[in-house]
Amino acid sequence: KAAKADSTTVHEAAAPVDLTSLKRIKRELVAPPFVHEHEQIAPGGPRIVEFEMKIIEKEIEVDRGAYLQGMTFDGSIPGPMMVVHEGDYVELTLINPPENMLQHNIDFHAATGALGGGALTLVNPGEKTVLRFKATRPGTFVYHCAPGGPMIPWHVASGMAGTIMVLPREGLSDHNGDPVKYDRVYYIGENEFYIPKDENGDYIRYEDVGESYPDTLEVMNGLIPSHVVFNGKVGALTGENAMKAKQGEKVLFVHSQANRDTRPHLIGGHGDLVWEAGKFNNVPDRDLETWFIRGGSAGAALYEFLQPGVYAYVNHNLIEAVNLGATAHVVVEGE
Amino acid sequence: KAAKADSTTVHEAAAPVDLTSLKRIKRELVAPPFVHEHEQIAPGGPRIVEFEMKIIEKEIEVDRGAYLQGMTFDGSIPGPMMVVHEGDYVELTLINPPENMLQHNIDFHAATGALGGGALTLVNPGEKTVLRFKATRPGTFVYHCAPGGPMIPWHVASGMAGTIMVLPREGLSDHNGDPVKYDRVYYIGENEFYIPKDENGDYIRYEDVGESYPDTLEVMNGLIPSHVVFNGKVGALTGENAMKAKQGEKVLFVHSQANRDTRPHLIGGHGDLVWEAGKFNNVPDRDLETWFIRGGSAGAALYEFLQPGVYAYVNHNLIEAVNLGATAHVVVEGE
Amino acid sequence: KAAKADSTTVHEAAAPVDLTSLKRIKRELVAPPFVHEHEQIAPGGPRIVEFEMKIIEKEIEVDRGAYLQGMTFDGSIPGPMMVVHEGDYVELTLINPPENMLQHNIDFHAATGALGGGALTLVNPGEKTVLRFKATRPGTFVYHCAPGGPMIPWHVASGMAGTIMVLPREGLSDHNGDPVKYDRVYYIGENEFYIPKDENGDYIRYEDVGESYPDTLEVMNGLIPSHVVFNGKVGALTGENAMKAKQGEKVLFVHSQANRDTRPHLIGGHGDLVWEAGKFNNVPDRDLETWFIRGGSAGAALYEFLQPGVYAYVNHNLIEAVNLGATAHVVVEGE
Ligand SMILES: [Cu+2]
Ligand SMILES: [Cu+2]
Ligand SMILES: [Cu+2]
Ligand SMILES: [Cu+2]
Ligand SMILES: [Cu+2]
Ligand SMILES: [Cu+2]
Ligand code: NA
Ligand code: NA
Ligand code: NA
Ligand code: NA
Ligand code: NA
Ligand code: NA
Ligand SMILES: [Zn+2]
Ligand SMILES: [Zn+2]
Ligand SMILES: [Zn+2]
Ligand SMILES: [Zn+2]
Ligand SMILES: [Zn+2]
Ligand SMILES: [Zn+2]
Ligand SMILES: [Zn+2]
Ligand SMILES: [Zn+2]
Ligand SMILES: [Zn+2]
Repeated sequence: KAAKADSTTVHEAAAPVDLTSLKRIKRELVAPPFVHEHEQIAPGGPRIVEFEMKIIEKEIEVDRGAYLQGMTFDGSIPGPMMVVHEGDYVELTLINPPENMLQHNIDFHAATGALGGGALTLVNPGEKTVLRFKATRPGTFVYHCAPGGPMIPWHVASGMAGTIMVLPREGLSDHNGDPVKYDRVYYIGENEFYIPKDENGDYIRYEDVGESYPDTLEVMNGLIPSHVVFNGKVGALTGENAMKAKQGEKVLFVHSQANRDTRPHLIGGHGDLVWEAGKFNNVPDRDLETWFIRGGSAGAALYEFLQPGVYAYVNHNLIEAVNLGATAHVVVEGE
Repeated sequence: KAAKADSTTVHEAAAPVDLTSLKRIKRELVAPPFVHEHEQIAPGGPRIVEFEMKIIEKEIEVDRGAYLQGMTFDGSIPGPMMVVHEGDYVELTLINPPENMLQHNIDFHAATGALGGGALTLVNPGEKTVLRFKATRPGTFVYHCAPGGPMIPWHVASGMAGTIMVLPREGLSDHNGDPVKYDRVYYIGENEFYIPKDENGDYIRYEDVGESYPDTLEVMNGLIPSHVVFNGKVGALTGENAMKAKQGEKVLFVHSQANRDTRPHLIGGHGDLVWEAGKFNNVPDRDLETWFIRGGSAGAALYEFLQPGVYAYVNHNLIEAVNLGATAHVVVEGE
Repeated sequence: KAAKADSTTVHEAAAPVDLTSLKRIKRELVAPPFVHEHEQIAPGGPRIVEFEMKIIEKEIEVDRGAYLQGMTFDGSIPGPMMVVHEGDYVELTLINPPENMLQHNIDFHAATGALGGGALTLVNPGEKTVLRFKATRPGTFVYHCAPGGPMIPWHVASGMAGTIMVLPREGLSDHNGDPVKYDRVYYIGENEFYIPKDENGDYIRYEDVGESYPDTLEVMNGLIPSHVVFNGKVGALTGENAMKAKQGEKVLFVHSQANRDTRPHLIGGHGDLVWEAGKFNNVPDRDLETWFIRGGSAGAALYEFLQPGVYAYVNHNLIEAVNLGATAHVVVEGE
């Protein structure tokens, strides 16, 4: 059994520095595809940006009759998106409530050293921990649970992954280096699930997360998922839950996949400016029909909606999009 | 049953504009890997470029003893490549002849709005439709059938995909922005098929396309294809059907995969200039050994053949290339 | 049976030229992840760089109880990394010793013409051959065995692949064109294996390489590997065999996968400069969390270690990393 974490100590990914002079701001995280309030251009010098997330283990019906023993950051799959600026400090309080069964932690791909924070944040049920790191590189970066050994892929494949966006202090810029602003941002977290079936081909529903492990492991190791979804379940971003935009708006779509490659595509639209690998120091690609998110990364695509209507946003492996679940809708209002 | 499409109306993907002053030109499509006649540098102002394609459902022997209930644009897998210039209008007449069994449509990744034209072009057997859209972005773009729901991946996996190349009006340019011309262009459409097997491991041959659906769907949903081919069947571009070139020629290879990632490689050659994501406003990569085509996209690679001989052009997953079928040959004449 | 190769003839991939005036240097290859001694900036004009590799067929325990009938260049999986400069000539003596059972050859993605040398180098057991080619393009390039037809994927999936790095004569340069030096270089060759199981789910151990072929072929054609490893076996680069570095050092990680896509990630670190497709004439990407190696290619990532500690270097499909084997460690010393 792991030692009780000291909930009042801040664990630093990298050498500690004196931060007493920095301003603090607390951000309230919101469930994806929405993103908490934030400025695109940093209003002044670096700050300490405080976030809090509660880990919640819960069963989720990811498709009709298909139940996942899910593990979540803050109750949603994917975990909420955080936004800070380059040079800011991220200070996350991570809570593992006593009703959970498992140890968890958090590895930020945006952090440097200490396994991205994973080495500092392992928390048992009933514990919490505080991690602070400096966001030194601008871009979209995955975070995920990585509690060691085979727990790592299992926790990620159970839903424990999200994204942090580290904006350049002056905001985004285009292929010419000219500033570019988004009118709206959506965060699409793609996950693949490996839900076991019984001998009749019916999905097995488990009593608890521990019971689900052995069968799930076997399916995972075959590398073929049963479901590929956006926002944690089939249809989470369609119908009443479709993303909304207005004609003429520039919408930034941040897309993460923490474990498996994917290829987003906006039917009827394009990627005007695409940071495929998600890092804003690189020149964005233009005009893309489809972009590629490397498994274990988050990318970003900006599109100005020229026409009103209903757009489908898909993983353009169309089997995965239509039959396994990776389809969202964007409803664009206009005259 | 869908309403009878009005075969005399032109459906516009985007708001209609007055085009009466534009010149028209009719292009006769040819079967891949060949490409219809075209200018690399646009001869004057924007034109309306007319194309016509007939949808043909037919059984195809994709490998010895392996039969696909195929669906095709204009009788070939992939569908023919179209070439226009940025600023031109594409005007496609799409015919679904009465002998077909299924509804079809066309979604152009090059078009803006209306699901890429998919929302405007659904045609029953015995109907035709006309779609017009402005080609506003330079690059190679997939088009494919997308008749709704699970029909989408099935029609694509049955062969209904092709490519349109939208050239910059001044032709292509290299990594320095200097103009570059190709001496020859080939279009390689890669498709993966999911042909079901019986309990003895023999491919099942179906009476008609409808009968093939349930088993095919099951194989598709497992995401592992039985065949990965260029130009619709194993060996379609080898032996007598090998592509030809001359030593010293610059050959543009356009490569599409509408559903699944692939990684073209020219054995003994390279990609001198590669637009991996296919969009000509981006700086091409140089010297590539292997390039990556995101599932649901088309890319382009230019190579000047320095040596005569027989080159193999493959998907460099070598199992897919050799055992599942994704191999072509280029015979290069020289002294 | 193939004709006896003339072991005294040098086979040229491309037209022969007079090379008598060039200096020669012999490089002793070393087993990966290490790389033979070399200069980053070329000391003078082009040279003929001599290498020698012996092909060794041998059984390898790739994980506890899982035996591969391996085929290797020089006894290691992957084969050793070669380093030359742009404009140098590579002169490889390739030996197929009499104790081997199979024909082999070598296809260099860095070479031009003659199937990358594959058409010139087929050697029977007991033969040797000499291949010479000019390294005309700077970058990291895969080499692999490609002895024809279904032997190609089988030999590659049995371990016969490595990398050559062709440095620009003036060494590497960053995104601004400024020179950049590495303090250390490691070569990580990723391979996936397809080891058959019996009806109890136990891995089958074969008497010899020939006996292993039919079952292995069947697993290969299903496209799902049993193992995904770095340096030839699970745990080859962890524990005592971890890669080493010092805080403040810039380490170049060259990563190849000759057959299947992968996505390297350094937990707790980043790619400061990444040549994803591996070709040094292209501008490197910055700040990457995860980079993508197209199956059939080699890429390179430079990272300056800012913090001491143990880093994990993984294929960020975490199932492949943790459960199938694709994990390495980097131990970084510092105060
Ligand atoms: Cu967890
Ligand atoms: Cu990770
Ligand atoms: Cu169709
Ligand atoms: Cu599409
Ligand atoms: Cu071999
Ligand atoms: Cu190769
Ligand atoms: Na919260
Ligand atoms: Na990037
Ligand atoms: Na036609
Ligand atoms: Na591009
Ligand atoms: Na040697
Ligand atoms: Na490159
Ligand atoms: Zn800020
Ligand atoms: Zn966890
Ligand atoms: Zn599409
Ligand atoms: Zn034109
Ligand atoms: Zn169709
Ligand atoms: Zn190759
Ligand atoms: Zn040299
Ligand atoms: Zn071999
Ligand atoms: Zn990670």
